[in-house]
Amino acid sequence: MKQSKLFTKTQKFAPKDEVSKNAQLLIRAGYIHKEMAGVYSILPLGLRVLEKIKQIVREEMNFLDASELIMSGLQKKEVWEQTNRWDDEVVDVWFKSQLKNGTEVGFGWSHEEPIGEMMKNYISSYKDLPIYVYQFQTKLRNELRAKSGIMRGREFVMKDMYSFSLDEKQHNDFYDATIEAYNKVYDRLGVGEDTFITFATGGAFTEFSHEFQTVCEAGEDVIYINREKNIAINEEVLNDKILTKLNVTKNELEKVKTAEVGNIFNFGTEKGESLGLYYMDKNGKKIPVWMGSYGIGITRMMGVLVEKMADDKGIVWPESVAPFQVHLINIGEEEKVEEIYQQLVAEGVEVLWDDRDIRPGEKFADSDLIGIPYRVVISSRSLEAGGVELKKRTEEEGKIVKMDELKSIIK
Amino acid sequence: MKQSKLFTKTQKFAPKDEVSKNAQLLIRAGYIHKEMAGVYSILPLGLRVLEKIKQIVREEMNFLDASELIMSGLQKKEVWEQTNRWDDEVVDVWFKSQLKNGTEVGFGWSHEEPIGEMMKNYISSYKDLPIYVYQFQTKLRNELRAKSGIMRGREFVMKDMYSFSLDEKQHNDFYDATIEAYNKVYDRLGVGEDTFITFATGGAFTEFSHEFQTVCEAGEDVIYINREKNIAINEEVLNDKILTKLNVTKNELEKVKTAEVGNIFNFGTEKGESLGLYYMDKNGKKIPVWMGSYGIGITRMMGVLVEKMADDKGIVWPESVAPFQVHLINIGEEEKVEEIYQQLVAEGVEVLWDDRDIRPGEKFADSDLIGIPYRVVISSRSLEAGGVELKKRTEEEGKIVKMDELKSIIK
Repeated sequence: MKQSKLFTKTQKFAPKDEVSKNAQLLIRAGYIHKEMAGVYSILPLGLRVLEKIKQIVREEMNFLDASELIMSGLQKKEVWEQTNRWDDEVVDVWFKSQLKNGTEVGFGWSHEEPIGEMMKNYISSYKDLPIYVYQFQTKLRNELRAKSGIMRGREFVMKDMYSFSLDEKQHNDFYDATIEAYNKVYDRLGVGEDTFITFATGGAFTEFSHEFQTVCEAGEDVIYINREKNIAINEEVLNDKILTKLNVTKNELEKVKTAEVGNIFNFGTEKGESLGLYYMDKNGKKIPVWMGSYGIGITRMMGVLVEKMADDKGIVWPESVAPFQVHLINIGEEEKVEEIYQQLVAEGVEVLWDDRDIRPGEKFADSDLIGIPYRVVISSRSLEAGGVELKKRTEEEGKIVKMDELKSIIK
Repeated sequence: MKQSKLFTKTQKFAPKDEVSKNAQLLIRAGYIHKEMAGVYSILPLGLRVLEKIKQIVREEMNFLDASELIMSGLQKKEVWEQTNRWDDEVVDVWFKSQLKNGTEVGFGWSHEEPIGEMMKNYISSYKDLPIYVYQFQTKLRNELRAKSGIMRGREFVMKDMYSFSLDEKQHNDFYDATIEAYNKVYDRLGVGEDTFITFATGGAFTEFSHEFQTVCEAGEDVIYINREKNIAINEEVLNDKILTKLNVTKNELEKVKTAEVGNIFNFGTEKGESLGLYYMDKNGKKIPVWMGSYGIGITRMMGVLVEKMADDKGIVWPESVAPFQVHLINIGEEEKVEEIYQQLVAEGVEVLWDDRDIRPGEKFADSDLIGIPYRVVISSRSLEAGGVELKKRTEEEGKIVKMDELKSIIK
């Protein structure tokens, strides 16, 4: 894509009321636009990143044999009253409104209840189970404060998956498979080494739940980890009992700030029972369905990647989700650059070509801010030296490479 | 995909309160689930159709050099007050709620105002124009009644595009190019012949706007058409003046019921002026930006296709948006069907294989209800006759074809 066709321009400053690093950088580089605190529009560059994150997650969920769907945002009071979660005293993040006839409606902040309710149409016999479904959806949560940029928005994109299983064994097998799938997701996003499955507060059915926490200074959580033993415990549940259970002492643990990038919940049969979701077993006996829910915050993940990898010049995207692989910059040499641009595009490389008529210094500064993994500069100097200047965003110095070499490095 | 892996099952009846044919069929076949009047969740089969419609629209919008983005759903009062469209007396479809601190917020029923407002960040000079952007977005409209299924929902997916142009010439060129792009979309969706660009009520800036209307009994509009002259006029603007202008008499026009499947608006400089969206021309003079907006209702389109093409047995999808190309049904012959299924999948054909252990009659009835373009039956009878039985959904009788033939017909 030619950069002159991008309507967004980099900005020297983010809005004054924007206090989070991730949103500041994403706004300045033209990935997002701030509508109000905690509410951002996703601009063309941002949408490319978001869709890549979604696609990685989608592939891993499909690998689990889960089916994608999209539930409605508008929510029915009666469905949430069954589990006592309509009440603002119980759930304090509802946005609510009403139909013209006065009927109260809510806007989906989660979808456990409506998905469970819907499944009553499709689950009656043991033959119908298991069922795994997931969605990418814009959730709305009326957060009291929204100061973490896209890491905790009032409007945000989330992948939520739900499992409906016959019994504890089937449930646990899927729960374990999901942990593996999540680990693959974080690996592919470039944060595998710094992401820990963490013991956290449980629910009515289980003593603990599992969170996936990524080491990140801007995170809101504090966890204790032991990298060697691959143990992580949220400080909220850190006590002697769990230390004994995990066979670790507090001295062996390192305290780190983290951002929650995923969570998985085991509802056991509790949610099914409160929603009235049962099936008939082989003997005609009525059995409550085992349910689990499994979330990954997609926009949050995008924010965490920015917070974690950015340097003082701007954003640094991992290759797997960068909006483009190559930022092509020419200093003069219009004919040559057009030729190289066409070649790279023909080879299927995603290239952003800064074809704007501005000073090289501005192009370099913008390139650092936008954070594309490979910068390729074409100038009379590079051509004389036999090729193009290639610099990784994470490196200080570039080097001259021939075109053939370039292609093999990028792929 | 194996049908046994689809959690949805066909249903004999739609919910009693569902009066529209499109939603009745889509619910019964397992494409959507009704959450409340005018609010539907999109199930895996439905999502396949929806994404295909979106992809067709996306390709044609990209061909116009428009950039995809996603604006926020949550809306700021101040932005809409500038054009006097926050007031419920002026716009009667707002869903509104409030933040914890009492600030009123709305939920996007359209995005002209916030997109125009945002563009103030990116438009200052004539060099910045033109800009074309579009999005696929879930809109919320608090409709008084919602009885048309997914043809007019309270929550629905819409493609909306916005143009920002230097002057009337640049604006009109894009406006005309969009008309062509829309015609291509409707052709690809299989309703080109029955879709008319129609003169309709204008706005403050123009005497008329243009709607795209598809002939459809379930539609809410009445238009007058002349197929030969390719003229269409919404009854709301039918008068002697327009007849003279178009050089047609009322006798030459046929009255038809239609569904609006797209609309395009020319705001001229009016919207830009009310939002304060100006640019500096070459001489440093401040000029208001020309704006246009261009919509296609994506879920509505899905509903129109069902209404228009369904027969008394069920849905009939056009090939371009069908969830699968082939519905493979075996009567016994488990080994042979597995082989053929694998072959077709390997060739890139989208196959739904009804591998369920139920009566053939049930499989055939379900297949007609679901509406996949090609039905392929494998039975001892078909194998003895030398191949598989192929029947198009639109045909009454199938015929025996060899596997090689099948592949060439389907592609």
